[in-house]
Amino acid sequence: IMMDDDMETGTLGAYQDRPRTFPNMRTKPYTPLIFRILLGINVRVLFLLLLLALVAIFYVGASTSPIIVFVISVCILSFLLALYLTKWVLAKDEGPPEMVQISDAIRDGAEGFFRTQYGSISKMAMLLAVVILCIYLFRSTTPQQEASGLGRTTSAYITVAAFLLGALCSGIAGYVGMWVSVRANVRVSSAARRSAREALQVATRAGGLSAIIVVGMAVIGIAVLYATFYVWLGVDSPGSMKVTDLPLLLVGYGFGASFVALFAQLGGGIYTKAADVGADLVGKVEQGIPEDDPRNPAVIADLVGDNVGDCAARGADLFESIAAEIISAMILGGTMAQRYPSGFILFPLVVHSFDLVVSSAGIFSIRGTRETGVIVPVEDPMTILQKGYSFTIVLAVVAFGLSTRWLLYTEQAPSAWFNFALCGLVGIITAYIFVWIAKYYTDYKHEPVRILALSSSTGHGTNIIAGVSLGLESTALPVLVISVSIISAFWLGHTSGLVDETGTPTGGLFGTAVATMGMLSTAAYILTMDMFGPIADNAGGIVEMSQQPESVREITDVLDAVGNTTKATTKGFAIGSAALASFLLFSAYMDEVSSFSQEPFKQVDIAIPEVFVGGLLGSMLIYVFSAWACSAVGRTAQEVVNEVRRQFIERPGIMDYKEKPDYGRCVAIVASASLREMIKPGALAIISPIVVGFLFRVLGYYTGHPLLGAKVVAALLMFATVSGILMALFLNTAGGAWDNAKKYIETGALGGKGSEAHKAAVTGDTVGDPFKDTAGPSLHVLIKMLATITLVMAPIFL
Amino acid sequence: IMMDDDMETGTLGAYQDRPRTFPNMRTKPYTPLIFRILLGINVRVLFLLLLLALVAIFYVGASTSPIIVFVISVCILSFLLALYLTKWVLAKDEGPPEMVQISDAIRDGAEGFFRTQYGSISKMAMLLAVVILCIYLFRSTTPQQEASGLGRTTSAYITVAAFLLGALCSGIAGYVGMWVSVRANVRVSSAARRSAREALQVATRAGGLSAIIVVGMAVIGIAVLYATFYVWLGVDSPGSMKVTDLPLLLVGYGFGASFVALFAQLGGGIYTKAADVGADLVGKVEQGIPEDDPRNPAVIADLVGDNVGDCAARGADLFESIAAEIISAMILGGTMAQRYPSGFILFPLVVHSFDLVVSSAGIFSIRGTRETGVIVPVEDPMTILQKGYSFTIVLAVVAFGLSTRWLLYTEQAPSAWFNFALCGLVGIITAYIFVWIAKYYTDYKHEPVRILALSSSTGHGTNIIAGVSLGLESTALPVLVISVSIISAFWLGHTSGLVDETGTPTGGLFGTAVATMGMLSTAAYILTMDMFGPIADNAGGIVEMSQQPESVREITDVLDAVGNTTKATTKGFAIGSAALASFLLFSAYMDEVSSFSQEPFKQVDIAIPEVFVGGLLGSMLIYVFSAWACSAVGRTAQEVVNEVRRQFIERPGIMDYKEKPDYGRCVAIVASASLREMIKPGALAIISPIVVGFLFRVLGYYTGHPLLGAKVVAALLMFATVSGILMALFLNTAGGAWDNAKKYIETGALGGKGSEAHKAAVTGDTVGDPFKDTAGPSLHVLIKMLATITLVMAPIFL
Repeated sequence: IMMDDDMETGTLGAYQDRPRTFPNMRTKPYTPLIFRILLGINVRVLFLLLLLALVAIFYVGASTSPIIVFVISVCILSFLLALYLTKWVLAKDEGPPEMVQISDAIRDGAEGFFRTQYGSISKMAMLLAVVILCIYLFRSTTPQQEASGLGRTTSAYITVAAFLLGALCSGIAGYVGMWVSVRANVRVSSAARRSAREALQVATRAGGLSAIIVVGMAVIGIAVLYATFYVWLGVDSPGSMKVTDLPLLLVGYGFGASFVALFAQLGGGIYTKAADVGADLVGKVEQGIPEDDPRNPAVIADLVGDNVGDCAARGADLFESIAAEIISAMILGGTMAQRYPSGFILFPLVVHSFDLVVSSAGIFSIRGTRETGVIVPVEDPMTILQKGYSFTIVLAVVAFGLSTRWLLYTEQAPSAWFNFALCGLVGIITAYIFVWIAKYYTDYKHEPVRILALSSSTGHGTNIIAGVSLGLESTALPVLVISVSIISAFWLGHTSGLVDETGTPTGGLFGTAVATMGMLSTAAYILTMDMFGPIADNAGGIVEMSQQPESVREITDVLDAVGNTTKATTKGFAIGSAALASFLLFSAYMDEVSSFSQEPFKQVDIAIPEVFVGGLLGSMLIYVFSAWACSAVGRTAQEVVNEVRRQFIERPGIMDYKEKPDYGRCVAIVASASLREMIKPGALAIISPIVVGFLFRVLGYYTGHPLLGAKVVAALLMFATVSGILMALFLNTAGGAWDNAKKYIETGALGGKGSEAHKAAVTGDTVGDPFKDTAGPSLHVLIKMLATITLVMAPIFL
Repeated sequence: IMMDDDMETGTLGAYQDRPRTFPNMRTKPYTPLIFRILLGINVRVLFLLLLLALVAIFYVGASTSPIIVFVISVCILSFLLALYLTKWVLAKDEGPPEMVQISDAIRDGAEGFFRTQYGSISKMAMLLAVVILCIYLFRSTTPQQEASGLGRTTSAYITVAAFLLGALCSGIAGYVGMWVSVRANVRVSSAARRSAREALQVATRAGGLSAIIVVGMAVIGIAVLYATFYVWLGVDSPGSMKVTDLPLLLVGYGFGASFVALFAQLGGGIYTKAADVGADLVGKVEQGIPEDDPRNPAVIADLVGDNVGDCAARGADLFESIAAEIISAMILGGTMAQRYPSGFILFPLVVHSFDLVVSSAGIFSIRGTRETGVIVPVEDPMTILQKGYSFTIVLAVVAFGLSTRWLLYTEQAPSAWFNFALCGLVGIITAYIFVWIAKYYTDYKHEPVRILALSSSTGHGTNIIAGVSLGLESTALPVLVISVSIISAFWLGHTSGLVDETGTPTGGLFGTAVATMGMLSTAAYILTMDMFGPIADNAGGIVEMSQQPESVREITDVLDAVGNTTKATTKGFAIGSAALASFLLFSAYMDEVSSFSQEPFKQVDIAIPEVFVGGLLGSMLIYVFSAWACSAVGRTAQEVVNEVRRQFIERPGIMDYKEKPDYGRCVAIVASASLREMIKPGALAIISPIVVGFLFRVLGYYTGHPLLGAKVVAALLMFATVSGILMALFLNTAGGAWDNAKKYIETGALGGKGSEAHKAAVTGDTVGDPFKDTAGPSLHVLIKMLATITLVMAPIFL
């Protein structure tokens, strides 16, 4: 029943017919045409093209605004810095051949999966681009819109171009994340043979390099798009569109980014956890061999999963977070800029330019060796990372204050910039508290995880009940914090002194937008800490598989544990920013509907039965999406379990290292299954808002209820956002807590490894895997994808 | 950490000091003063008082409307019928002394817990009554309100009186459910020694008896209250209030009912599942003894739990469902009756009078023996119950059509009654589909549970992942069905031809109300099937404990399995009606706010940040409430596990039947812990809407935002309703599916009992217990309680 339907790719699908032994661990996957063309171009020609593009970009930027030139320059400098970091990381040695061999197998698996996955995604993106084109070509426009130079055809091409650019950049961000991590992992393993501190430095610099590229790509992409549209449409010249309406044209970019991120996260998330759960269930639970043991046939698949699931997917996810947040803030800034300086529009780009600068400083503050040359006792890597974070935060606060003074100062309301600086501070503090709450609920130094561990001693059942309760309960504090920060940022903005023509205060929503930017003002450093985790995890795997001495394993274990904590905390951070960004995009959606339909659309009244039903459907979407994401992991893991069990039975020599397991077959099974399984939840997320909006538009038409489709979709979006935030918090926290409860028992508490309590804790950890690494992170992306898809698809609902 | 805080009752709290052996299984619990006074009154005096009350009721009813007289007469006839059923059930023999002894122990445990629990609840209700009195005495009223004869003092007394009467009736409904089941259980066991069919008949008649009393109490309570207020306030006489505003005065009754039901369900739900989980974890999993084995020290506590958790709590729950639904429909009917016949107000009471009649017919259609005297092969009890259900449904459709023609016919819109009859049909069909969906997802005859069972074969972890996914996914169909029925009933009502002064159609919401009534038009039969479950379960326990022959056990096993199915399906039914009733109460809330504040309050705009935050908080409330309900079970179960383990260690003779376990101590532990644990979630549910409303009222006052408190509470209510429906569906379905996946494996599939797959399935079942029998049903009550508390507490938010 599980394998009968279509295989996504011919080669992978035919794995059943392959010979059962592989010449070595490497697998040679199929490369899609587009990659082969790109790889076929001469390097010099590419370089020349790049240079030409740069000149064009600067020319267009200079014709728009000096601020754009500043933003683009910072991005390009950051890319140069990233180039330096790449050289630095690649210059590190790869260690002995046995390590290289494992690393090569991981790299092949990851790159093979990445290519096939992004091949499918790019096909779907192309299809969607055609759909968007048709929708925009056949929609009705108002005379004013036509007169402003933004006719039907122009806006169709603009939206599609933005969508495709967003998708492409998101894909590149994912690729960079994966490219770096599959190269850094073995170098970290190798460095761990020398010193913990060097290993830490290599891992953070590798993480930092991809973080800089991800954030830089998001910023430069939007800046270039903005400048191009500005020049192309002759903005602000008579008879053309106004600059304040320009940001609305960028939403296609956000949708493209979130579209790719959704499938990247789903596919990668299913891959990594199916391999992990499958490997653990047979290896650890049934056979009693340690994690990452070379005798486990699913071990390479598990290690590949860290790269495609954590690195590539998280890169695409954060890329999309930043893009969505910049665009929503620019749209709100556009509303403000009707009366106030145009700096309100470009402010988000500047904030993230400074983000690049301060985060780079933070990354470089983590040093490999002490200057003094004196040997000091080994520091806790978490402390080092935290120190770097605190350093970055301090710089970010200063930079944020400067940016508000520079761009948001207006003579009509001379103290407004200070209110907005405070909004930024609210955001930064919110981020800090979020990180703290996530730590409180998932770290075994604190009460909740200890109680969870204790409940393992009465069996599997009580462990799961306690974990579910812990996860459900952990939603309370983040919701309270986000509530306070939404309201306080809104009121800071509201009372900033900015008013519309009638004297009504208008700065409230922009205040919330500034708080979101504050929250994300150290995004590159946060992403560095996040990327650090899977690199360290992989390094540990390579050390274990190549059977290095215990001392080396100890170093990578410490790094791995730190990586788990940073991963859990950045997830809290991702949800907080998703909640805020989605709320902003919601108001952008209402503006867009008003401007399309030329009717006021100021409220979403949930007392109307259809709107209430929209809300029900929105919440339901979150439940079904989570269900499908989890069950995809469960099903794929079962396939892995059956394959691993089969190998252990058919090759009894594996356990004595006499026979080699067939790693490639597990890789192929997981890859093929996760590509298949990512389609269902992804399609659900994309199709449901469109179908609901269209159906209710038709119903509204026949029952004489104007804008019904748009209203129902608005309710769907809001309820889905709220449910999505809560569900994601639940899934992430429960998963993280189960993981650490197991780790806590493994430190020797409650009977330690091998006890009944430990077995129950392992069950909890297994359940938590798809929660925290598949469904949870996919929900972050889903929330923002819903907000952007409703914006782009709005013409369908009207 | 768990036992250190306050014990609710002195006697139970001191159980640590008791001697460790009990003279027999019976425990004599403490009886609160109020019960002792009631029990002390002479029976003849009581009878005289009752007769006097009856005469008064009829006199008041006759002064109000002939319809009220009809309703009261039907209720009193039903009570007489219930009296006949009581005599019939009690006339059955109690079987051999060993059965009676066990049954006595269960009865003592259940009645003891009930008294202590309702003692606490009545104290809390008194406290709340004082709070409500103060709120109403100090609120501001408008001159119009004072002039209509409904001054501050009057409305304060009316609200408090209604609240207390609702609480009292709800308590009686719960008591009757428990009283019947602790007496019927042993009679069903005894009948099972003779024939399956007789056992079935005793169980259904006992269930039917309490169902009739529960529904009858709800209807007569509201009818009497309505008539009393009508006469007292001189309604419709010049200068007094209009009859159309009368139903709003009844909301206190709904709140009283839901207040008691919430704590009854929480306390009972925690009791039953903590005992069950605790007994299973040590008995079944660790010691390998069967369920309900007399050697298990927690077995009596487990059997007591069925009575207090399933019978008493479900009685209070359904009582409150019906009350909430009647009151909300009467409020909407009041709006309609401003232009149309007053039958619109009394319609819900008539529908439930017919419910009593048709359900009684259904109950009596289940016969003990065939008239012909010929012995026929044993029928599946489920088929018999289903036949009775179909019979009831057919009668209900006819009765519903007659009622609409009788009460909703108006000359201005001669076909309106037919539209409303169709609305009723929509409700009945919705109920049918809901029952079918619940069966599809929880019955092992269908795909989902089979897949879940299959996933148990790869371990505990995959079983839990699959169960969670199944539960999350199962929300989809019910939401789609409820969406379609809300919209179609709304449009049937909207197009019924009923219009307001301006010619705008007004019947939409009333159409939804009629659909809700249609859904509940066979409530008494549904409740019968539900009550049947725990009675059969208990009967099975008594048979097992008194070591009857295998053939007797087989009969009770079949009945028990049927009871599981009916229990799962009535839960789907309860959620559907909760969703609809809550949506109606929401519109009543908006009317109430408008009339209190004399400002239009027609919409809840979630685009306002504070209102959005209200929604976030509402959804969060559901998560935290569920978390606390589940963790309460987990914690209490751990106490039971430790106690049972201790007894097995300290009395090694238990396993060979040489030593008697200390049942009483387990009963005392569970009772004391569940009384303690029910407070936290219950208080959260009651306090949060009040606090949120008040805080935002203050915030609105200082920021110049009128009605902010009321708006935020409205959003809280709607988001909590939506989240609550989805969460309850998830919890109930996942729990039911896990239970039946285990049962499926026990039929011999996938290795059968004792296999690894079975162990994994038992873990799933344990996790599902608090989901489906504590948190899930408590959420049904919570949703309606929130809707009524916002109505009653509205003066705080304004």
